[in-house]
This record gives sequence, C-alpha cells and structure tokens, in this order.
Amino acid sequence: MGKENKVIGRIPISKVWPEVDGGDFPAKAFDGEVITFGATSFREGHDLIAVELLLTSPKGESQRIRLQEGRLGLDEWTTQILLDQIGTWSFQISAWDDEYHTWLHNAEVKLAASIDEELMMLEGQKLLNRLAENAKGKDKKALTEIATKLVTSGSTPSERLTAALAAGMSEIADRNPLRNLETLSDSRSVLCERRLAGSGAWYEFFPRSEGATRNKDGVVVSGNFKSAQKSLARVSQMGFEVLYLPPIHPIGTSHRKGPNNTLIAGPNDPGSPWAIGNSAGGHDTIHPELGTESDFKSFVKAANKLNIEIAMDLALQAAPDHPWVKTDPQWFTQRADGSIAYAENPPKKYQDIYPVNFDNDPQGIFDEVLRVVNKWVSFGIKIFRVDNPHTKPVDFWQRLIAEVNSKNPEVIFLAEAFTRPAMMHALGKAGFQQSYCYFPWRNRKDELVEYLNELAHLSADFFRPALWVNTPDILTTYLQFGGKPAFKIRATIAATAGAIWGMYSGFELYESVARPGAEENIDSEKYELKVRDWATALKSQDTLIPRVTLLNKIRNENPALQQLRNLVTHYSDDPEVLVYSKHIAAEHNGGKANTVLVVVNTDPHSVRETTVHLNLEALGVKGELKVTDLITGQKFVWGEHNYVRLDSFTEPAHILRVET
Amino acid sequence: MGKENKVIGRIPISKVWPEVDGGDFPAKAFDGEVITFGATSFREGHDLIAVELLLTSPKGESQRIRLQEGRLGLDEWTTQILLDQIGTWSFQISAWDDEYHTWLHNAEVKLAASIDEELMMLEGQKLLNRLAENAKGKDKKALTEIATKLVTSGSTPSERLTAALAAGMSEIADRNPLRNLETLSDSRSVLCERRLAGSGAWYEFFPRSEGATRNKDGVVVSGNFKSAQKSLARVSQMGFEVLYLPPIHPIGTSHRKGPNNTLIAGPNDPGSPWAIGNSAGGHDTIHPELGTESDFKSFVKAANKLNIEIAMDLALQAAPDHPWVKTDPQWFTQRADGSIAYAENPPKKYQDIYPVNFDNDPQGIFDEVLRVVNKWVSFGIKIFRVDNPHTKPVDFWQRLIAEVNSKNPEVIFLAEAFTRPAMMHALGKAGFQQSYCYFPWRNRKDELVEYLNELAHLSADFFRPALWVNTPDILTTYLQFGGKPAFKIRATIAATAGAIWGMYSGFELYESVARPGAEENIDSEKYELKVRDWATALKSQDTLIPRVTLLNKIRNENPALQQLRNLVTHYSDDPEVLVYSKHIAAEHNGGKANTVLVVVNTDPHSVRETTVHLNLEALGVKGELKVTDLITGQKFVWGEHNYVRLDSFTEPAHILRVET
Repeated sequence: MGKENKVIGRIPISKVWPEVDGGDFPAKAFDGEVITFGATSFREGHDLIAVELLLTSPKGESQRIRLQEGRLGLDEWTTQILLDQIGTWSFQISAWDDEYHTWLHNAEVKLAASIDEELMMLEGQKLLNRLAENAKGKDKKALTEIATKLVTSGSTPSERLTAALAAGMSEIADRNPLRNLETLSDSRSVLCERRLAGSGAWYEFFPRSEGATRNKDGVVVSGNFKSAQKSLARVSQMGFEVLYLPPIHPIGTSHRKGPNNTLIAGPNDPGSPWAIGNSAGGHDTIHPELGTESDFKSFVKAANKLNIEIAMDLALQAAPDHPWVKTDPQWFTQRADGSIAYAENPPKKYQDIYPVNFDNDPQGIFDEVLRVVNKWVSFGIKIFRVDNPHTKPVDFWQRLIAEVNSKNPEVIFLAEAFTRPAMMHALGKAGFQQSYCYFPWRNRKDELVEYLNELAHLSADFFRPALWVNTPDILTTYLQFGGKPAFKIRATIAATAGAIWGMYSGFELYESVARPGAEENIDSEKYELKVRDWATALKSQDTLIPRVTLLNKIRNENPALQQLRNLVTHYSDDPEVLVYSKHIAAEHNGGKANTVLVVVNTDPHSVRETTVHLNLEALGVKGELKVTDLITGQKFVWGEHNYVRLDSFTEPAHILRVET
Repeated sequence: MGKENKVIGRIPISKVWPEVDGGDFPAKAFDGEVITFGATSFREGHDLIAVELLLTSPKGESQRIRLQEGRLGLDEWTTQILLDQIGTWSFQISAWDDEYHTWLHNAEVKLAASIDEELMMLEGQKLLNRLAENAKGKDKKALTEIATKLVTSGSTPSERLTAALAAGMSEIADRNPLRNLETLSDSRSVLCERRLAGSGAWYEFFPRSEGATRNKDGVVVSGNFKSAQKSLARVSQMGFEVLYLPPIHPIGTSHRKGPNNTLIAGPNDPGSPWAIGNSAGGHDTIHPELGTESDFKSFVKAANKLNIEIAMDLALQAAPDHPWVKTDPQWFTQRADGSIAYAENPPKKYQDIYPVNFDNDPQGIFDEVLRVVNKWVSFGIKIFRVDNPHTKPVDFWQRLIAEVNSKNPEVIFLAEAFTRPAMMHALGKAGFQQSYCYFPWRNRKDELVEYLNELAHLSADFFRPALWVNTPDILTTYLQFGGKPAFKIRATIAATAGAIWGMYSGFELYESVARPGAEENIDSEKYELKVRDWATALKSQDTLIPRVTLLNKIRNENPALQQLRNLVTHYSDDPEVLVYSKHIAAEHNGGKANTVLVVVNTDPHSVRETTVHLNLEALGVKGELKVTDLITGQKFVWGEHNYVRLDSFTEPAHILRVET
C-alpha cells in the first residue's frame, strides 16, 4: 500500500513553492538572494481568502507575511523575500477565510446597487465587534467605535462606510484578523548558503603555467606557487572572485600521457594533473614542483588578500603509482587475473587512471576522502570543484557534502558533470552547491531563451548553474569558428545571464585553435606547460581583458546581475538578437531598484538591425525608460518597442541600466 | 524545520509514475485501463542497471516486471500494464546493478577489438558461478556448465561466447539476477475503479419532458417516470450506457423561476429542478408529478435491463420551502436581521435558492447528505452527478466520497465544476471519479491539440474528463453559429478523443437557438417542459441520431477508443484539420492490436484539403497502413504523409481503423 490519502484542508492549499520533490530536499538559496515564496490556494464559492507565509529564519525568528494574488484565474499567491541569514529557513503557508474583505466587498457592491443597505451595516457592526474581541488597546477601541458608527443613523449607509474606511477600518481589521477556517500547509525548507555558493565570477589557471619560462634550448621550466602568486594581481584586476586550480598533487608517472593526449610521454612532459599520485604522495600532497605546503598556504593567503578565494580540484581517481594502490588496494577493482582494473569505456582504455570502486569499502573510502577534504579545509580552502562526480555514486556525495557542511557550512562543492539531465539534477539535490551546465553548447538565440529560462525558473530550486565560457576540456565550435566577436558575445552573456560565470585562462587571449576533430584546445594545457606572454597581453588593446574587466565591474555595480531567478527574456523580431533583463526591487536593494536590460547579437558573423519588444512590467517601469549603456556610456530613451543595430564586428551587445 | 533530506539510494530513482503530488493521492485508473508505470533511474559511470516494477494487486498478488529504457538520454524506464482488478494497486520501483549485462556488453566489445579476451572469459566464469549460487535446479546446472565452457580451451573466446549465448546464457542469467546494490523507491498507489468511472457514453434527459404532451389549449402535461421509461429504448438504441437525470425531487414554489429564468413563474410553470424541496419533501423525496418511489424503481430497473445505468443529480442547496429550512435552519446562513441568506453574487440575487452553510454544522450536514446518498444507493443508483461542487468545501467532498466508497466502491461521483483549474483539479484529487471540463470551449485545432494532450497526459492521473458536447447550461457559440456540421464535428471528437463523452437531449435534433446574449438554449428546459416529437425524429434522416448511434457503435467495437491516456496527436498542414490516434497493444486486447486514427475538419463552414503527417511509431506500424473508414466503409492505403479532403457540409471526418 502507498501512503494514506492526504486530508485536504478546509481552505485547500494544493501547491507551495519553493519546493523540491514534494519536500524531499530543501530548496537552494544564497545569502542576499531574492526568493519567491508562494502557494496555490482557493476556496469554494465567492468568499475571499487571505494567504500568508509563515517564515522562520535559521535563528528561529518567525514572521507572517501577507501574500498577493497573482495572475487571474490561477489562484496563485506570492511574495518575494530577500534571505539574509545563512542556514535553513522553514516556511508554511496559512490560508483562511477573509471575512472582513468579503463583507467589505459585498457592502460596497450592494450599497452601489441600493440593496440591503442597513442590513450590510448591521452585518458590519457584528463583524467589527467580533474583530474587536481579538484586538487590544487602540485597535480594540477603534473597532468598537467604528462598529457603532456603522449603525448610527444621521447619515446614509454609504456615508457611514466611507467614514469608517477613512478612519482606517481596513488597516485595523487587517492587523486583527479572525483567521476563520485557517488551514496550514506542510512545512518546507530553504537552505540558504553563503553568497559564493550561488553568485560569483570564477577564473581558472594552471599554476604550473603561471610564470613558466622557455629556455633557449626549448625546454620549458615549470611555474610554481611562487610564480603563480604574481599572477593573482592579473586575476584580481579583471574582477574575479574565485580562482580554481586543477589538481595540485603529484602526477603519476606510470602510463603518463604526452602532449595532445598521446600515449607516450617524453622525459620532460609534465603529465595530466588529473592522473593523481606517485611515490611523492596522493590527494593530500602538494606536487613538489609546485612548491611546499607552506608555499601553497602563502599563495592562498595572497589570493584572499586580493578578495580571491581559491577553489581546489577533487578528482577521486588514482594514477597506478598513487600510494592508495599499495596501502589500500581494496579501494580498486581487482580483475579476475588479479590485476587492478584501469579506467575503460570499452574498447577505449585509460591506463593512466585507476578508478576507485566505491562499493568495495564504502566506509574506508569515505573516511579517507573526508580526511583529504578536511586537510585542505584546514589550509583555508572553502571551495572544491569536483571532477566527474557523475562517475561516482550519488549517495557518496550526498553523505560527504552533508558531513563536511555539518562542520563547515561555508564549504562549496562545484559539480563538473557534463552528462544527462537526471544525473546532473540529482547531484544538485544531493547537495552540490553549484554545477557546470550545458551553457557552452547553447549559442543561438532560441536555444539560449529556452535554456536560460530553464535554469532561472525550472531548475533553480535544486540546480545552480555556473556559466563557463570555456574550460581545458571545452572549446566549442562556436568559439573555434566565431572569431573574436564570438568570445565577446559569450563572455557578455555568461557574465550577465546567470549569477555565476567562469572563464579558463587563455580565453581572454582568444585562444581558439582546436585539436583537429576535437572540442578542446590544441596542445592542451592538460598535458603540457603553457608559456603565455601576459606582460605583452596586458599592454595590448587586442585582448578581451578590458571587456572581461568591464563585465565584472558591471556585475559588481549592479546587484540585479548577481541573481539567477530574476531573469526575464523579452522578444525581438530577429532570430539572432537575444534580449533579457534582470530586476531587483528597491526594497531588496537598499531602497533603490536596479534593472539591467541586455540585448545581444548571438551571430558573431553579422550586423543585425531589428526591433526589440519589452515586457515593461518585468522591468518595473511604465511607458518610457531612460537607459544608460554600461559598455559605451551612451544614454537612450526607450519604450515598449525599440530599434537596435548590433554589429558583432564592433559591438555585439547593449548592457542597459534602466535609470528610472 | 521542513522534513529531513531524503537519503538518495545507491542507484538513484529520482521520479516514479504514476504519482500525484508526491504520493499524496493515489493515481486514478479504471478496470481495463492501460497504465504506463515508470521511473527515472540511472547510475554513475558506464555500468548498466536494470529497473523493475514491483506491482501488488488489490488481492495482494505481487509481480516483478522488467522495465524498458525509453528515449535516449532521459534515463526513463517504463512498461504498460492493463489493470484488471478493482481496488488499490500499490507499486515500488526497484533498480539494481545489472552485472551480467555489463559483463556481456564489455565482453562483446572487447572480443570484437581483441582486448582482454581470455580475461573476459575468466570474469564471465566467475560471474556465472556467482549467479549459479542463487539459482536452483536446471538453471543452476546450466549456469555452472556454461561457466566452465567459457574457460575451456579448444575454441576461441568468441566461439565460446557465441556457444554460451546459444545455450540460453542471457535468459538464464535474467531469470536468476544477483540484484547487487538494489534500491527501492517509496511505495505509490493506483486506485482502480470500475470501467464507467473512466470510460463511457452518457446521455441526459429531463424525465418530465419525456412523454410530455401539449393539450389543445396549449397547456403542457408533464411526463413522468412511466412515460420516460418508454424513451429508454431510444437512448439504448443510440448506444448510451449512462442516463443522467436532473434532480427528480419536489421543486420549491417560493420565488420559483418562470420561462427563460424570469423572476415570476406562472401557475403552470414547473420550476427549475435544481430549486429543490417543498412541503412534499426534499432531497430524499421523488417529485410527485414524476411518480412514486416504486415508479422510479421500475424506471431504474427498466434502464438496467437495457444496460443503461441511471445517474442522479446531487445538488446541495434548498428552495426556501425545503423541509431542511424548518427542521435544520442551522444548516443555512442567518443574516444579521434574522433572515436566512439566499444565494447571491452581489449585486445578483438568487432568491429561489438557499445555499447550505457547511461550516455551521459540518457533522449534521455530512450525516444528512450521507443519508440521502445512501437512500438512493439502496434504490440501485450507483452514479451521482454533483451540481456545482466548487461552491461547497472540498474537504466535505473528500470525506463524503471516501465514506460512500468505503462501503460502496462502485459509486461514481461526477463533478460539475466549470471553474478555475486549481479547484477542478482539487476535486479530482478529493475523489471525484470524473469531471466536466473545458471541452465545450475548445473548438479549433490548436486549442484542441493543446487541451486534449493536457487531459490525456498532464492531468489524467487525477482528473478524468467527461467530454460533453452540450448541457442544459451550455450551448456554445460554435454550436449556435456552426450549423449542422458543427454538431457532427463536436459529437465525432467528443466520442473518440476522450474516454467519456456526453450529450444532452435535443443535441441530436440540432437545437441551436440560444437565449439572446447567453450560451444556453432559448426556452430552456430548466424552466419549462419540452415537448419533442421523437416519433417523427426517429423516422427522419435529418437528425444526428444515426451519427450518434454509429459513433457509439464505433466506440464499442474499438477498445482503443475507450481509453484516455493513449491519445497521440499528429500533424497536419492545415490550421483546422485535427489529427489524433489511439492505440491499444495486442497484449492488452486479447491478442489483437486495435488502432484508430481520426482526422477532423474543425471548421464547420469550409472544405479543407491538406496533408496529414503521421507518427507511425505511435500507430504501431511501419511504412504502409491499410485503413478502413468506419464512417463510410471506404478502404485506403496510407503512409507517413497523406492527402485528405474534408468537406464539413457532407462529411467533416475520417475515423480510420488501422487494419495493418
């Protein structure tokens, strides 16, 4: 037998939100995020109801907030709340018979039609006296007086009703409701995490490439934490808040991969950082070429000084020479011939990697991973980018994240799972604070409109998308063949359409040559050291550095852009011109509304002229909009329908701040 | 605090269906209905999983049914089951590591690539021996033998694998699975009710009009159950299964309405049957003019003999002279002046009706309504059409239906709620077996495609739509202005697109004149007796009677048309040509598949020529279809793309049975 039927309440509440899987998981939010709370609630007949949100903060403070009815006919009631405490918020919806407003509505209609005039006054008197029983002090006195005046002759019923309303009858009644027939929903929760869990600008570099130099004989000398520390200024000047490092652990030598993922590594090839572990150590060890633990601590400290957090990689796999293979061979799969199974997707072989078999010794593996994570947490690391979490059991992650967050709720896990939607969503529900997503492969207007709406509205309660423009694994054909405009377009959208965006080093230099037939850079940094001439790049006008810097500045100055759920897409007549806006109300932004409207030509090869049609309500304006283009500084006066011309070869986008 | 986080299983199962509101309510089904059971389930990495349905019938018999994976990338697993027992079915989903098929897949791929050949044989041997430990008898022996042969030299590994497969290795392995890492979903339930709860053809007539005669002086003499009994043959010959009667109780005399809803009734005006109750009695009494209780029992018996069930009306309201007003005045609302409140929607007044106030004496009212319902149940009534349930508390209905069905699970309640979606859906969840719906106002192709898909796929688990073409309250502008073709089109769609359809008397005579400005018939039968010349009509060719008879015959002979959830809409190039099909598989229809394809011109004023494009997979065919038009008897050979010409003035539809 399934569970018993739910008993429907006197005032039905058939849906509440935010809610994930009927309350199986808390909805996600971050400190400073504006969340829409709501319910579908209704009643029989014509009488009115009131719907309230009973919201309890992590500290245990409770408040009742009256919801507003939304679109006609849908019986949806909502309010927006800015969550400003980290921890678990809980809420219930309360719905009740709104006897006062039912009476007032009927009285107004009947008086206008000269029906039951004195009777409605009498009903009003009785009702107000009942409200008075519930009220105290001034309100009690006022209600009693108004009640008496409603039935005191000497003026017409209409004049008496007008006088009662002028005396504040509705406000007093609303403060002292009877809440007849009150019905409560089940309780639901919202997990509010720190801001960077849901909003932020990320950069990725390989520390070994930062400061790497090429000797005259062609041999490249690895960078290290000391040299990479000098690059922090560059990252900071561009305005990034998180710097993610690929694994910094010793790299396996057995079956090490050579340049461009070739099977044989030369003596100077550094190997892929994701082939973790050799005789020097494993996941708890720093690669000696990068420096000492103390160098790493200095690096983290220097970053933090620049308001940059360091995100480490957590790749739960081992090179054949990882210490675990000797100390804990039971953590791997033994084949029938006694050998340890390397990674395979038959017939493909990945002999440089031993996958962990989580079912062989779940507790032992859990304890070891927890030890590793806690070690780095003790180094000041509060963010982990998890490599391929979808190749490990989901229940392992749920347990690990819950355990880490129970002691250190500030720790953020980013899921690097480019896989099917069911798994990606499950990882979000399992606790991953954020996730890479399909953004790199959503390039044209229609697919962006659909996907951005999915991210902002359908999956936001459990899946926080990080909009990365590229990674060491991803150089899309759009970037390969779109030229420099493609880079500008993608950075513009990534930085403004979601709440988290990311960029891997080299993007700002328009690195766009792919390994033939692949969707990743040729001579990938995964397998070799990269010597980039940052000094020259920083002086050049021909990089994306100024644009990236500007984008992060715009994000920083416009709180509306730091939210995910407030995205609204608008219409344009052109199949390549994407239009969206983000709005944060004055009450959630220190008394001043912030509204940004972005118009982008998604075709990197053309000039587009078209008309964009705005949903003015979503922009919080009526009629005319004064806007400032935050890219060019130009000012325009816009309305509901607006001509735009976007030339991808010069400037493919408007980022318009609405000034009124 | 909300509830604790759900612990995700080792093999995640993130969704199961059918499921209503996370299991708060059972999904609806009817005896003979084919239900799709399924789950979203997946695992980390590349290894395969198996997913099973654990289904328990109302009698407690359990079975495991292997699910099939559906569309690529969605991780959805489904099977279709015909439910054939009335009562509550329960189910869980089981998902587990499919070690055998993972090994087989890897072995086949590796052998083809000459990798690890002997090793894969060795792994196979070990696996089969483990399977053998679980197996018994012949299977145990066979597995052990095959295991040994896999590693016995003398032939190549490929030859050995081929031999093992030929020896039935996979079938035996599937019969004796290890079910490693088995994960079970929560249990969910499906309430299977009798067939008429979800499928059937309904007719409505006013018994007082059946056999009513007009005297020479113009006075109309009321029909009664005896005269109406003679009309049962007509209803039966058209093929209807349920006959619904408007209220048959004494009609109030106070404030009785006259013809066309006028405020003053003449001495011969019979009044609206929905103004229930006078000195002769109330809801538990038969209107004396219709006859005695014994006459009613004979009428019901005569109907049942013709395989027609009688549905009674349950309208919980009272005329001012209803006995309740004297015996139980507390069941109504007392106004401040001591009077009883009549129905109002200010400024509109309905002084002939006193609404029941369910909050004044919930238990007393519940007991009385239960008594009334049980009285008619004791008369052999098993169906109630509930008038305006949305003006009464939803929790009242949930309690009443549960109580009635606990003793008499065969009793069906039809909700007459034409209101907002949240309420209509809540009534379905509260237990109403079926519901009137917006079908009358969905007339053009696009709106029908959207709405029929909503009914068949989005809301079918909790809302069973009855597609009525008209009612005494509904004569749509489409029927008013569409001429006879409109009637033919609507009957054709209603009878074939859903699983329940209904028709109110007069429709077959093309009664299409409305009260000016209203969407109901002029001289409505609600307020006056209707004398219709059925004898002449039955001889005439110019009625819809032959078409209605044919439609019900086609429904009866094609089980696919008796299902709701199997609807698939297809594409046509014309904005007015609607195309849909219904299919029932051979295994659910006594070994013979049944497939019906309907093509209708929804424009009653035109001839349309167009191409229809078929989803052949949904039709269960490949390439060519031999079809028979069940309206004309013509035979065609169709393919994926087909020319059609539909002339609404002669024949607006094809109803094609696919002969294969």
